[in-house]
Amino acid sequence: MRKTRVMVWNENIHERESEKIREIYPSGIHEAIAEGLRECDSFDVKTATMDMPEYGLDQNTLENTDVLIWWSHLAHAQIPDEVAERVRTRVLDGMGFIVLHSSHLCKPFVKLMGTCCRSKWRENDEKERIWIIEPAHPIAHGLPEFIELPCEETYGERFEIPTPDELVFVSWFSGGEVFRSGACWKRGLGKIFYFRPGHEAYPTFYREDIRQVLKNAADWAKPSCGPKPTLGNVKTPYENVKLVDRSDEFHP
Amino acid sequence: MRKTRVMVWNENIHERESEKIREIYPSGIHEAIAEGLRECDSFDVKTATMDMPEYGLDQNTLENTDVLIWWSHLAHAQIPDEVAERVRTRVLDGMGFIVLHSSHLCKPFVKLMGTCCRSKWRENDEKERIWIIEPAHPIAHGLPEFIELPCEETYGERFEIPTPDELVFVSWFSGGEVFRSGACWKRGLGKIFYFRPGHEAYPTFYREDIRQVLKNAADWAKPSCGPKPTLGNVKTPYENVKLVDRSDEFHP
Amino acid sequence: MRKTRVMVWNENIHERESEKIREIYPSGIHEAIAEGLRECDSFDVKTATMDMPEYGLDQNTLENTDVLIWWSHLAHAQIPDEVAERVRTRVLDGMGFIVLHSSHLCKPFVKLMGTCCRSKWRENDEKERIWIIEPAHPIAHGLPEFIELPCEETYGERFEIPTPDELVFVSWFSGGEVFRSGACWKRGLGKIFYFRPGHEAYPTFYREDIRQVLKNAADWAKPSCGPKPTLGNVKTPYENVKLVDRSDEFHP
Amino acid sequence: MRKTRVMVWNENIHERESEKIREIYPSGIHEAIAEGLRECDSFDVKTATMDMPEYGLDQNTLENTDVLIWWSHLAHAQIPDEVAERVRTRVLDGMGFIVLHSSHLCKPFVKLMGTCCRSKWRENDEKERIWIIEPAHPIAHGLPEFIELPCEETYGERFEIPTPDELVFVSWFSGGEVFRSGACWKRGLGKIFYFRPGHEAYPTFYREDIRQVLKNAADWAKPSCGPKPTLGNVKTPYENVKLVDRSDEFHP
Repeated sequence: MRKTRVMVWNENIHERESEKIREIYPSGIHEAIAEGLRECDSFDVKTATMDMPEYGLDQNTLENTDVLIWWSHLAHAQIPDEVAERVRTRVLDGMGFIVLHSSHLCKPFVKLMGTCCRSKWRENDEKERIWIIEPAHPIAHGLPEFIELPCEETYGERFEIPTPDELVFVSWFSGGEVFRSGACWKRGLGKIFYFRPGHEAYPTFYREDIRQVLKNAADWAKPSCGPKPTLGNVKTPYENVKLVDRSDEFHP
Repeated sequence: MRKTRVMVWNENIHERESEKIREIYPSGIHEAIAEGLRECDSFDVKTATMDMPEYGLDQNTLENTDVLIWWSHLAHAQIPDEVAERVRTRVLDGMGFIVLHSSHLCKPFVKLMGTCCRSKWRENDEKERIWIIEPAHPIAHGLPEFIELPCEETYGERFEIPTPDELVFVSWFSGGEVFRSGACWKRGLGKIFYFRPGHEAYPTFYREDIRQVLKNAADWAKPSCGPKPTLGNVKTPYENVKLVDRSDEFHP
Repeated sequence: MRKTRVMVWNENIHERESEKIREIYPSGIHEAIAEGLRECDSFDVKTATMDMPEYGLDQNTLENTDVLIWWSHLAHAQIPDEVAERVRTRVLDGMGFIVLHSSHLCKPFVKLMGTCCRSKWRENDEKERIWIIEPAHPIAHGLPEFIELPCEETYGERFEIPTPDELVFVSWFSGGEVFRSGACWKRGLGKIFYFRPGHEAYPTFYREDIRQVLKNAADWAKPSCGPKPTLGNVKTPYENVKLVDRSDEFHP
Repeated sequence: MRKTRVMVWNENIHERESEKIREIYPSGIHEAIAEGLRECDSFDVKTATMDMPEYGLDQNTLENTDVLIWWSHLAHAQIPDEVAERVRTRVLDGMGFIVLHSSHLCKPFVKLMGTCCRSKWRENDEKERIWIIEPAHPIAHGLPEFIELPCEETYGERFEIPTPDELVFVSWFSGGEVFRSGACWKRGLGKIFYFRPGHEAYPTFYREDIRQVLKNAADWAKPSCGPKPTLGNVKTPYENVKLVDRSDEFHP
């Protein structure tokens, strides 16, 4: 069976500009994520960053990606609309899209959701408890009943998203907020998973439980290779339908 | 416009057997709930309790009820299966059903859900914060962004329910749990709303915000008076459909 | 109770440019729709067309509209992006949005959905049967089990929409297609209903059953007046949360 | 990786009692289904029939089954409640459950759904066209845009089921009906897929496309091996939560 081609994309700014962040992620957040995924034989994992040509998101790269994992925070506005549109189109065409933490405000995700995707937030070293509320979902595979992150950035509802097709995780924060922290959507032929944790100031992406979530999500989000629908003006296959009026029998 | 006929049903045991509870709800939980609903001109509100003939749930009463609000805790097992089945059938036939707090384990709800409906719980005087995560829902009408209950019984996920059709509220508890505390389902021609708060030991049903939720829910749950579907063996209205095979055009 | 302010917006091109269409809708599709809605006392109904200043969609008009009903076909591209964005923003802020027939490709709907919203289509005078599959939904109020349109344009799946929050109608076409013809979404504080029928060449909007659907939909889509969530950087209300580690008890 | 243990269960009455049906399925419907699944190396496929001890559904067998595929029609009432309850419990505990055709009225499915699960039906040799409306779903893997069955029993809406978590297929019938013919639910830790085709009088289960659906469904329905939630009375992990009242800042 062909391996799932996963690409981890990162804006890679915090790690270059802040010594404190670089200490946590010396090779960048993308490499920490990729390292976890590489433990799985069924994945072929690459990374890309925003400073590469065409932001690391050229057409050829996207066409050879089955699942795109995205981390961004400071540079949402720097991604040109046409690049964001290219990512959106590729998702609609079947590519999986895993959107991490502050990437809920990245252009391709916002375009795919149709809503503003804002939320409450607070940097306060609070505790997060990610409750698995849909244990039958493939993304819950091998997880404990909850994942406790001793320190994370706090996000709070209301999270301005369309109702998820499937809500897998809900987070509790010690400061009083809740958050829909693991949410699935289908869009076109593609599958999208938003996963809340992963603030740059915490070593979240080294944790085994978080890595398990990302493995599960990448496997879930891979293209289903279903039919590519025909669209536009089509001919009828069935003609000469004759009505035998029996509406009385339906509505006596 | 005809008024919505709301019946508040209560097992009414705690209030009779415990002086402490009777101090909080001297006329019973059902009367505290009914009092709030009676502020609305569009409701015709009655109450019933388990000690009435046929448990207060005889066929005639159910047929003249548009929305049934249910509170039970100790006596789930005392309701005979046939009475529970009668309630279930009436819901499938269009009656709204609002299920409060510990009533998530009452027989009619469990039968309608198909799952076990258990959860975590703890009596610990914790704080509950009910976040309104779907502010566009009719049940969110007139509510603040969250409702804070200074003391309530704690419930925790996983709540063994089918995925709600609409998830309106998620609760945060100071002890570390989250809970899907306002959830909607359609079943047959009826609508069901589960609402978490309302432990007998707290004066929750006197609060204006909680009463607003119940008014909203009763209005939302009233029968839609849509079509009653025809079932079983039916004749075809359309005969002589002739195939013109054009599958090539669809799948070149 | 304040009336629901409904505005019926129409591009109004077919009716002006084609004598054949003008015979069917001499006052325009918008007036035929408005006429039906005006039978309801609870609506205050206005109309607007694309040839008005600011396309009939100026800020003031939108702010004074509770539910916008939209019909367009030829002129999707003529609506400037900023006007489409204004409509989208107003929906996210609470305005109901009812999208008719070929308007599934209008800019505000496509932006709100995030997908391409294309489908199969065919002008072939086929019969359409709209099955009400969710009879408990408010939009099914007062409808028969199905609505049969003797001649309509055919639309066919796959319809490139996000999974609806609620799927109320599914259409059967004599030529062999099915279509999700009545679909609900929440987006931000607003509610959206897509309704398939209403090709300009058929007198669909004079039918009592179709008018009943539009009345139901306008009532369902009116703003819920729920909370307007706080967003952005917020302070914590709860501090000094101390952990008592009992994870052993959870995972023995 | 451990193989998925699939058991195909069949009441096996038509095949034994009717020569005409036996000609179509000489080894029984269950063997025709099993034959298709055995083409997949990842499945370990067994069959069972109602005439076996404990109806072929003893506790040990169920505990060693990952996915149960069920076909029944005449004998729904012959399955004792306790056996139906055993199947339901095993599904809630994680076993996948694939329910075929007339099995929508079998006891375990009806108990798990909570509704009556009836529909319209007609034996009229009509054509069925199964449209894949959710091509991104794993059960759509490798399928064409639609599956056309030249002759099948007709089923029609309204199908009395809870709103599916995911609706993958919608069927068109030449006689004028539509049907939600491929529908997914999660219940407890288990996943359920209802698939409409497969009337005993047609050789439906020999078709490659139908077999592809069943392979996809069995793979999708296998247990996710997520967490098994703790239920009941639990202690709090977090104590001494102190309120700093800042509600003014939230609601100025």
